[in-house]
Amino acid sequence: MSSEPLKLALLQEFDHGSVAANLAAIDRGVHRVASEGAQLVLLQELHNGPYPCQSEDTKVFDRAEPIPGPSTERIGSLAKELDLVIVASLFERRATGLYHNTAVVFDRSIEICGIYRKMHIPDDPGFYEKFYFTPGDLGFTPIQTSVGCLGVLLCWDQWYPEAARLMALAGAEILLYPTAIGWDPADDSLERHRQLEAWTTVQRGHAIANGIPVAACNRIGIETLPDHTQGIRFWGSSFVAGPQGEMLAQAGVDQPEIVLADVDLRRSEKVRRIWPFLRDRRIDAYSDLLKRYRD
Amino acid sequence: MSSEPLKLALLQEFDHGSVAANLAAIDRGVHRVASEGAQLVLLQELHNGPYPCQSEDTKVFDRAEPIPGPSTERIGSLAKELDLVIVASLFERRATGLYHNTAVVFDRSIEICGIYRKMHIPDDPGFYEKFYFTPGDLGFTPIQTSVGCLGVLLCWDQWYPEAARLMALAGAEILLYPTAIGWDPADDSLERHRQLEAWTTVQRGHAIANGIPVAACNRIGIETLPDHTQGIRFWGSSFVAGPQGEMLAQAGVDQPEIVLADVDLRRSEKVRRIWPFLRDRRIDAYSDLLKRYRD
Repeated sequence: MSSEPLKLALLQEFDHGSVAANLAAIDRGVHRVASEGAQLVLLQELHNGPYPCQSEDTKVFDRAEPIPGPSTERIGSLAKELDLVIVASLFERRATGLYHNTAVVFDRSIEICGIYRKMHIPDDPGFYEKFYFTPGDLGFTPIQTSVGCLGVLLCWDQWYPEAARLMALAGAEILLYPTAIGWDPADDSLERHRQLEAWTTVQRGHAIANGIPVAACNRIGIETLPDHTQGIRFWGSSFVAGPQGEMLAQAGVDQPEIVLADVDLRRSEKVRRIWPFLRDRRIDAYSDLLKRYRD
Repeated sequence: MSSEPLKLALLQEFDHGSVAANLAAIDRGVHRVASEGAQLVLLQELHNGPYPCQSEDTKVFDRAEPIPGPSTERIGSLAKELDLVIVASLFERRATGLYHNTAVVFDRSIEICGIYRKMHIPDDPGFYEKFYFTPGDLGFTPIQTSVGCLGVLLCWDQWYPEAARLMALAGAEILLYPTAIGWDPADDSLERHRQLEAWTTVQRGHAIANGIPVAACNRIGIETLPDHTQGIRFWGSSFVAGPQGEMLAQAGVDQPEIVLADVDLRRSEKVRRIWPFLRDRRIDAYSDLLKRYRD
């Protein structure tokens, strides 16, 4: 492990209206953070288009892309050109009628270093992901890169301590969450505050419980359906927290923003020595975690 | 479930110097919160004496008490007299040379309603609990009372998402943590801030991940060994948070304090409908949670 801190960049963006425009914005952002010394870049969930799941519409599957494919070649080229590790997020077309919500990691090469298929799939009004995404079948497996062992998860996974723990138990040195989460315009300001605070708190909790840093990159902007019957205001607030859950950097709620943070992966060793939670897990008494409910 | 909010009281106290003086302080506090309408009272961890584990000393086992015994009779009498549910915390002498760190719940009766024996046992400088406490053998089983199904856990358990999840899966409607946690006087102010913030954050995270409220009652005061070679400054900060992790009430760091909060247990139904985390758990992919490490 490097004795230097890892320079991590998050690109918080809105939807620019087309795959080409979104990839061009990523290209600009990645060049910029590379010039500022970033080694690892985390993109937001499904960054190539608007959030696709606000309604159930078979035509939306046309947006899905093969992996590998043109988008992975484009982003992999950036990783190679700029000597970066990049975590991308794509709507994967795996086979006819079989789609996933998939993160793709590049390690300073056009070749794909590893992928993660979203394991926990949400479904609630405006987020009809169960219609689109087949639950992941690769389990909770971190991806080894030249900058560290990355526990890449996706959005809804961030509410599950099980996912974070399984990544940590497999050696993940940092948790990374490409995300697309926002407010229902019908929610009042108190509910909005509680939701945003809950979102950061639960992820900071994963950092603490596992003694590793965490970062989430979320989109911003108001996205509506063509008939304007629904809409989501994505709340941005992309952040990086350390292994005690301490906030290292955070973006605002309504602007494209680059978050840059120095993350000292070696600090986990020190933190886990004073808070050795992995030592004391009662694995003899956890078997009911494999049940839906203990009734 | 009652349509009225549950009035919960936490008694944050220092060590008064003797079992008799500590029980007298509890008696006064419980009478006071009963007069203010409390229905459920949460006491701090091992409230009958100073925190016993700052050194390893066989004489300290003399402080352990049988359950049932004089202390449970005293506290049970209060529960009966004042028509209260009380969560107490005792150094249990179970058999010759067999001791536990045990929570005891009374439900408006002198009879014991249920007990929980601390499952996760810490051990670090100043907190030599592995010397004193045999790990609990009753599992993570909530205790049903007239005010709700209580997920009673103890201190070090609060760092374990597994414990909170198992309680929630067994029907716990609220998580309750009697606690004794504090700062090492050698830690600087930034480290103190990170530790206290981590402590509240990880527990608020359990509330969020499970959609149920959480409360922790911690002691205050500086406690030193007789030879003054060591000491802990217990940081108080007892708190109650709702099912989205939102802080409902919190005490300060250095005074005895009563925390009173109205907790609407029915709100969990609403919160879990919008954030149905229990629905989407990938129990098919969690089996490695039963491993010490995935190597």
